[in-house]
Amino acid sequence: MERIEFIEGGSVTSVPGFLASGVTAGFKRSGAPDFALVFSETPANFTGVFTSCTFAAAPVLLDREKVVKGGKLRAFAINSGNANACTGEKGLANARRSCEIAGAKLGIPADEVAVASTGRIGVQMPMELIEKGLSLAVPALSPTGGPDAARAIMTTDTVPKAVAVRVTIGGKAVSIGAMTKGAGMIDPKLIAPHATMLCCIATDAEADNATLASLLLPCAQDSFNRITVDGDMSTNDTVILMANGRSGAKIVSGTPEAELFREALLKVMQTLARAMVMDGEGATKFVTIEVKHARSREDAVLAAEAVANSVLCKTAWFGNDPNWGRVVAALGYSGAVFDPAKCNIYYNAVPVVRDGGDAGTPEEELVKEVRGREFVITCDFGEGEGEYWVWASDLSHEYVTINADYHT
Amino acid sequence: MERIEFIEGGSVTSVPGFLASGVTAGFKRSGAPDFALVFSETPANFTGVFTSCTFAAAPVLLDREKVVKGGKLRAFAINSGNANACTGEKGLANARRSCEIAGAKLGIPADEVAVASTGRIGVQMPMELIEKGLSLAVPALSPTGGPDAARAIMTTDTVPKAVAVRVTIGGKAVSIGAMTKGAGMIDPKLIAPHATMLCCIATDAEADNATLASLLLPCAQDSFNRITVDGDMSTNDTVILMANGRSGAKIVSGTPEAELFREALLKVMQTLARAMVMDGEGATKFVTIEVKHARSREDAVLAAEAVANSVLCKTAWFGNDPNWGRVVAALGYSGAVFDPAKCNIYYNAVPVVRDGGDAGTPEEELVKEVRGREFVITCDFGEGEGEYWVWASDLSHEYVTINADYHT
Repeated sequence: MERIEFIEGGSVTSVPGFLASGVTAGFKRSGAPDFALVFSETPANFTGVFTSCTFAAAPVLLDREKVVKGGKLRAFAINSGNANACTGEKGLANARRSCEIAGAKLGIPADEVAVASTGRIGVQMPMELIEKGLSLAVPALSPTGGPDAARAIMTTDTVPKAVAVRVTIGGKAVSIGAMTKGAGMIDPKLIAPHATMLCCIATDAEADNATLASLLLPCAQDSFNRITVDGDMSTNDTVILMANGRSGAKIVSGTPEAELFREALLKVMQTLARAMVMDGEGATKFVTIEVKHARSREDAVLAAEAVANSVLCKTAWFGNDPNWGRVVAALGYSGAVFDPAKCNIYYNAVPVVRDGGDAGTPEEELVKEVRGREFVITCDFGEGEGEYWVWASDLSHEYVTINADYHT
Repeated sequence: MERIEFIEGGSVTSVPGFLASGVTAGFKRSGAPDFALVFSETPANFTGVFTSCTFAAAPVLLDREKVVKGGKLRAFAINSGNANACTGEKGLANARRSCEIAGAKLGIPADEVAVASTGRIGVQMPMELIEKGLSLAVPALSPTGGPDAARAIMTTDTVPKAVAVRVTIGGKAVSIGAMTKGAGMIDPKLIAPHATMLCCIATDAEADNATLASLLLPCAQDSFNRITVDGDMSTNDTVILMANGRSGAKIVSGTPEAELFREALLKVMQTLARAMVMDGEGATKFVTIEVKHARSREDAVLAAEAVANSVLCKTAWFGNDPNWGRVVAALGYSGAVFDPAKCNIYYNAVPVVRDGGDAGTPEEELVKEVRGREFVITCDFGEGEGEYWVWASDLSHEYVTINADYHT
């Protein structure tokens, strides 16, 4: 029986052939680590998904180019503290220059370096800090450097987010390790073929770029594209998947092996997506909004997203307030087509709304459900087969504090 | 020269032939006034616009019916503290019963009474309080009762919102008086032909129902549909316009008189819309987001709404943080089509973004602009003729406090 196992303390460097490091280049005034480097000892196949924001940042534009062009990737350099977004031609030149510097220091072609940035928008990249970051990060590369790298990409995150799994595919042990960051400016734009945060995934499976692409996008749609913290999509969202093939397990689209790999990849990405919502800016709740029996999947998406992004629902959750009136209001304006009289709502398994009206469950029992750190709101439209779910955080005082002060 | 003049301390009862009252029926635990009645001494023509929420409340369903059916309106009864939403057939029967009770007490047909409710969703209307409210409100009707009525419809509003204007049309003095309430669950759904709050407008102009309808909707689209507090549309939004014809000024569609009346009506509705944003839950800022030279009006709408409802922009405004990165991010994910390299942004008249990048204005100067109670963000896409603007409040700690506690 094939099983997908989590590796304790796993990260990108849990994958054989991948090195990583996290250092302090000086982007953050706090002096915390702010520059991460992930390096594949051998040229890796790769793919990526990116923000659909019109104001895509320079590194996004550059990485997209590399994904479209294809070829191999060896290194992924990430700085935290400057987004290199809205920086025009100079910003793009700086992103290219970053690849060149990294390539020179690593002894590889600049083409085989991807870059990502997160932090303040609209400020030109201080290239001396990139230079410094790479000078420190290249010699620091280590087969145990994954956790350091995960720490270095944090912004308002309170905990680093890294994970790795192992699975046997075709008799060979395959690892997938990953890290992500993102606690604010987090929104699922699920229709667009783009992910919504910053993530590096490494694997030693063997797959060509097209196969990787065909696996990454659906997994992104069922993980990162399902989460929301504040409904604000970023200019810099980037997910890069690198496969060095070292395990010898060949992944070919449409085979059971590919399906198993997809499952493992999805597990990694959902674990990180969950961690992002749990660590959402100021988040005190992890709420799953599940829509069932909608007329279509599109109706289910509209309904789930409206509740997940409703400021009134999110503040009610923060207040341990069952307030289902706000849930029905959000469903009502979501644009989803449904018959209110057929709508049933549950908090966990407890009936809240029956046939569009109060289910009669005493308020205290509902409070018990929403008081938990984690709960599920199920909206059953009782009409068709459309289904969708999203993960959302609440909206707290701490969120306001963080975002009335933090300068992106 | 025709001029539209504000009437000091104006309200619905500034209009000859309209009486009003505001009393305490007992819906609010605080004991504050919570029941308002507006009464036209003679049968008035009327129209209305309503929420587009699928979960429209019982009084909305009933009033819509009356608007479609046509005829005359004499009274508009509004309670605050119970929304009569998600209350099913019983809720609808209760709304009808309210009209009957009001009709009996006023000595008019039940058909000529409209009702509106605001407050908690999902609780059946305590009909004994409606009975009590009407028993008190009918004898309290007075030609100076407008301010009392405006006070009685408040929920989390901190100030009553009433206004009246006078304008000479065709040599005759015409008055328009109005009141509104709404500080939370306020969102413009601009594409839908529906307004988004609770408002009663009275006038002594003479116009048939069709003419009133043709005037009210465009004015709603340029006033209430342009505002947002929290991006949450309500189940109960209702605007009722009554015209008793007493001034003798006849308004016929397509004439200069109708245009002047429309201007006056728009002034009344914009004044109230502005007041609603100013008094938005926890609001400390009044921000106009203006989009110019978009490829189409639709692009301008998408862009302006995205910024107005961005939780990150709203918290930045609360923090006096110029953070234009959040504005461009919101524009970027809005769905509006534009070329970032042609985008210019201004705070009031101060350049913030030039050609998609930092305009170079020192941070201190930008802080000066956003520190004001009121400022304008202009996004110029430099491409076409599409234009749109919205009014938005910020998102403060006070908002979270109000909404983590207040049970809708």
